Amino acid sequence: MTFTFADVDEKAVATIRTLAADVVAKANSGHPGAPMGLAPLAHLLWSRVIRCDPKDSHWVNRDRFVLSNGHACALQYIILHMMGYKLSMDDLKSFRQLNSLTPGHPEANHTDGVEVTTGPLGQGFANAVGIAIAQKNVAATFNRDDFDLFNSQTFVILGDGCMQEGIASEAASLAGHLRLNNLIAIYDDNKITIDGDVACSFTEDVEKRFLSYEWDVLHVLDGDKDVKGLYEAVDKARKNTDRPTLIRVRTTIGFGSQNQGLASTHGSPLKEDDIRQFKEKVGFNPDEKFVIPKEVADAYASYAKRGAEEHAEWQKRFDAYGQKYGKEKAEIERRIAHKLPEGWEKALPTFKPSDDAAATRKLSEGVLKSLSGVIPEMMGGSADLTGSNLTRWADAVDFQSPATHLGNYSGRYVRYGVREHAMGAIMNGMHAFGMHIPTSGTFLNFVSYALGSVRLSALSKFQTIWVATHDSIGLGEDGPTHQPIETAAALRAVPNLDFWRPADGNEVSAAYKVAIESYSTPSVLALTRQGLPHLENSSIEKASLGGYVVLEQDNAEITIVSTGSEVSISVDAAKKLGEQGVKARVVSIPCFSVFDKQPLDYRKKVLPSGHPILSVEAYSTFGWGKYAHVHHGINSFGVSAPAKDAYKHFKMTDTDVATKAQKVIDHFKKAGTPLVSPLELEAEF
Amino acid sequence: MTFTFADVDEKAVATIRTLAADVVAKANSGHPGAPMGLAPLAHLLWSRVIRCDPKDSHWVNRDRFVLSNGHACALQYIILHMMGYKLSMDDLKSFRQLNSLTPGHPEANHTDGVEVTTGPLGQGFANAVGIAIAQKNVAATFNRDDFDLFNSQTFVILGDGCMQEGIASEAASLAGHLRLNNLIAIYDDNKITIDGDVACSFTEDVEKRFLSYEWDVLHVLDGDKDVKGLYEAVDKARKNTDRPTLIRVRTTIGFGSQNQGLASTHGSPLKEDDIRQFKEKVGFNPDEKFVIPKEVADAYASYAKRGAEEHAEWQKRFDAYGQKYGKEKAEIERRIAHKLPEGWEKALPTFKPSDDAAATRKLSEGVLKSLSGVIPEMMGGSADLTGSNLTRWADAVDFQSPATHLGNYSGRYVRYGVREHAMGAIMNGMHAFGMHIPTSGTFLNFVSYALGSVRLSALSKFQTIWVATHDSIGLGEDGPTHQPIETAAALRAVPNLDFWRPADGNEVSAAYKVAIESYSTPSVLALTRQGLPHLENSSIEKASLGGYVVLEQDNAEITIVSTGSEVSISVDAAKKLGEQGVKARVVSIPCFSVFDKQPLDYRKKVLPSGHPILSVEAYSTFGWGKYAHVHHGINSFGVSAPAKDAYKHFKMTDTDVATKAQKVIDHFKKAGTPLVSPLELEAEF
Repeated sequence: MTFTFADVDEKAVATIRTLAADVVAKANSGHPGAPMGLAPLAHLLWSRVIRCDPKDSHWVNRDRFVLSNGHACALQYIILHMMGYKLSMDDLKSFRQLNSLTPGHPEANHTDGVEVTTGPLGQGFANAVGIAIAQKNVAATFNRDDFDLFNSQTFVILGDGCMQEGIASEAASLAGHLRLNNLIAIYDDNKITIDGDVACSFTEDVEKRFLSYEWDVLHVLDGDKDVKGLYEAVDKARKNTDRPTLIRVRTTIGFGSQNQGLASTHGSPLKEDDIRQFKEKVGFNPDEKFVIPKEVADAYASYAKRGAEEHAEWQKRFDAYGQKYGKEKAEIERRIAHKLPEGWEKALPTFKPSDDAAATRKLSEGVLKSLSGVIPEMMGGSADLTGSNLTRWADAVDFQSPATHLGNYSGRYVRYGVREHAMGAIMNGMHAFGMHIPTSGTFLNFVSYALGSVRLSALSKFQTIWVATHDSIGLGEDGPTHQPIETAAALRAVPNLDFWRPADGNEVSAAYKVAIESYSTPSVLALTRQGLPHLENSSIEKASLGGYVVLEQDNAEITIVSTGSEVSISVDAAKKLGEQGVKARVVSIPCFSVFDKQPLDYRKKVLPSGHPILSVEAYSTFGWGKYAHVHHGINSFGVSAPAKDAYKHFKMTDTDVATKAQKVIDHFKKAGTPLVSPLELEAEF
Repeated sequence: MTFTFADVDEKAVATIRTLAADVVAKANSGHPGAPMGLAPLAHLLWSRVIRCDPKDSHWVNRDRFVLSNGHACALQYIILHMMGYKLSMDDLKSFRQLNSLTPGHPEANHTDGVEVTTGPLGQGFANAVGIAIAQKNVAATFNRDDFDLFNSQTFVILGDGCMQEGIASEAASLAGHLRLNNLIAIYDDNKITIDGDVACSFTEDVEKRFLSYEWDVLHVLDGDKDVKGLYEAVDKARKNTDRPTLIRVRTTIGFGSQNQGLASTHGSPLKEDDIRQFKEKVGFNPDEKFVIPKEVADAYASYAKRGAEEHAEWQKRFDAYGQKYGKEKAEIERRIAHKLPEGWEKALPTFKPSDDAAATRKLSEGVLKSLSGVIPEMMGGSADLTGSNLTRWADAVDFQSPATHLGNYSGRYVRYGVREHAMGAIMNGMHAFGMHIPTSGTFLNFVSYALGSVRLSALSKFQTIWVATHDSIGLGEDGPTHQPIETAAALRAVPNLDFWRPADGNEVSAAYKVAIESYSTPSVLALTRQGLPHLENSSIEKASLGGYVVLEQDNAEITIVSTGSEVSISVDAAKKLGEQGVKARVVSIPCFSVFDKQPLDYRKKVLPSGHPILSVEAYSTFGWGKYAHVHHGINSFGVSAPAKDAYKHFKMTDTDVATKAQKVIDHFKKAGTPLVSPLELEAEF
């Protein structure tokens, strides 16, 4: 196909640029520079390359587009509108306004056609790697010699800021290793960041860097005008059969503005007279705003129509596939609909108190082993801690390029390397593709390396499951550098995130049950290195409520509320108190956020007024005020020592807890302080 | 100097290896593999290269050594012991035990001779970049044509794990840009990580990658035996006048073990018979443990003596320097002693209620401008948000290679690029050097990209100051991807970290006052984008207590406790309530951790029992249970909208707060719930 760039193409590019200026100017806030610089590229991609059906933005075999430099989202919104997604001109006019569909950075599950949430730099690029992994995986799983059913590709645009973030380096190195030839990254090399010229902080040779990651690298030195070169580079990249491709495109930020090429066009609206002069220059009426010439609108309608036809053709192919591969088709449809396999939850193991004590990471291994067999959309992995996280089920196949002979693309276990932040964003990308439940492991302490992507899972309503082992001081000798003390508080404070700290086998199963069923909520499971006994009163059903009574007592003098490894210690403490004639209740709250969703009546039965409530947890006590009056925890960093010594050091033994509980009971009896459950105080509001 | 490697050298290497096996075996925990593989390199460095005086580990012109693969710390402890640092053989024998000087990963301010806290992968490498920056800066500031006073170098060893972490990529790119020729990084390319062969996840070309960062790159292909090659590479690197150098050294993990080269030697003790065979092979008595042959001990004593002599020579040079440059010498001594300049605090601006409202980021700019003049050890910067963070004082000089003509090495403003995680670790390295107070800016939301290094500041007792602007929903249009909701809770839960959220000009000055005076504690200052009025009752003195009464009332019916931008809203709400005859007190707690250190009597006066306490903060309410009964906050993600609309949306106006306060008062009056200050409940324990 010979490349031609007609008048309507020129006009389309001018339309995108004038709209970008108008959209940002009306909001009086935003970033016009990159949208104006990237207009030719965006037009080429959507007019000639990207396969999509705007009327069905969830079509599974669509190409995925990610704008990693999310601050340039005016560009994405303009294109989505012109292509006919559910985004009106009025939506463009309410850019960055309350409750609009056009927020300041693109948000998944908020705006039709936006695949992932971007803006925090580097995330979108790593999401794209995750999407590309998912694409490879479903293709290898479901395609047949006679049916090339899944063959979509991922296009991602990123800027200088994304390039500088470590998460992008991690993701790029892994993408090169995995030979994701379906990934096309376009680097907007406009040489401008907020601080001005990149020369002040960023002078590395990006092409050489990507070559070192074993990507193929192309460049277009005049991305403002060399549209043929741009198209040819993109076309070559999408036909790459071997590796991911980076295309470095030199563009001029704010192209067309009087200040083009300057940082001043990056993050502030263009001035009125600047917009006027640009419109005049490209033949638009400077008195008009938000204009899409009819021929441009028609052209975009034709691109959408082409996409709809491709979708219809694909649907025919899918139906034919179903004739021959009925079971596979049903399975694909089930996964696309996010329906879990019938009866999957029966695979969850249950435990009796007489079962052998076990580390919850070990119990998690058992669950993963069971579930991986019945939930084929589960895709596991670890950030180079497989043997410690126990995340790999015995017959797992690694997700690898077949060329490595270490696995293949239908493999469901990703060797992420020591790349926690990218791992989080890659899981987000996998979820965004729509046919996987990603689960991955690292030490709980190093989830904090990935907090940037964890919060985006929660904001995007993406289901990702972190198997976060080596919880608290129980990991022992590795010491304070590896012992999470504050991490639970950080994660419990994230909206729409379930942080679980199960206390035994049934609680581990409950954590997985709720996590697997929570399609719109990420979960972090904090698991022990050390063995824990199975509780007498735990069950999947009770623990699934997020909190429940482990040890009930009439006329109790104290409630000890605890989580994870400290629940059995608290039960032992209560027994010790019982021997001394003191009645103590014990409550387990494996997941604050799930417990908080239960009816108040239930919660008040779990944590009633009338006696002191003592929290016991080998973490910072920060945040426990919502449930307890007095807190027994660790408000300093941990220690390097065998786990038992560490527990003694921090007074976390049953004897210590019993002593503390007795002190608390005595104090409040003496003081006569009236004790109202914190739940009662908060109840009405 | 021709290179010779004598019998005593061979024996020294064998000593390090056998000790590494013994140390880890006795602890029955730890990592013998890398120490055994790196023994020749370590011996070469300490016998021939590194300049240090073990009897004065704080000598300012010592070379710095960082073991970024901190899990290999048995190696570092062994060397420190042999060199004569304050680390005995008994300390080696109590490796990884409670309260030992030899914890599972190296900890700064804990073990003599350990410069920075490492183990969390990639951190040490980025710390080394920070140290190298500090070295360059003091050299450029204080050296004179006739006095090469500061000329120390930084040596860092890193492994495959560090190489994979994004933070290392960020730091390496910046180090190359800055042309830190005093930085020598040695990459232990042993091809083994916890998951096994690096081939499963890490196949990039590391040399090419570092060349892309504009480093010089060398390699030694047999790091087990080619000691001459090793020495020559290190020697070449330390003489590099132009760029940092990476030396890739191929080693065999667990060299000498029957399992050498295998992942099994990475993180588990060698078996008894394996240790015996190795000792026999190298001519050691297999029945003996923890042996240092006399000739090896003597050799190490001679290296220490050489170092002491170099120190003495340097001291003479420093004294001579003082003869000519008395003022500079006094300044150097002041900075080394961490004494702040006399009367520096007078430079802190104070404000009256009649002063113009201002964003706290703007007020912070004023403080930085004032203080940068009187505290020359302050070294600023921003992660490419200079114009948003307002971190650069007007006459600042950029810290840059003079070759760039953009600044010079005596500059005190670092252009970090979009590299938050490395920025945090680089600040740690600067502090560790010992003559700087690093301050740096980013958006508060992106401090979470750097949480891994922030917690290490706190654990290491390193003073770093984060200028974290664009606090909460007040940043407006950028939306939920940029609005920190949970970040305050994450930071408030970190032990030994002061998170400040000042409400006005005096509180900003107070935050800086305490942060600058806290030599062993990092601080994060959360600052607004939007303007705030100056409070009637604020003062530097009061705010420096972490919490105080902003609006007192006798017989108050409610206390509203708030922080930052919501304090003035709460004051307005209290005034509204007053107009309705309701008496409301208002309390500001700009810093929880500083407030918590005040005497209980004071705190109880600030937050007394007897009436409801309502917290008001435009963040997650998580953690407020420690101060208040009812919480008014934001337990979801934010919104993209102009700041005023966002405040209305989340009911954060004075009217909303007054309404809520009235509801709270009414509820508790009706319920008759006895109201005890949470401080009272927690008081005794």
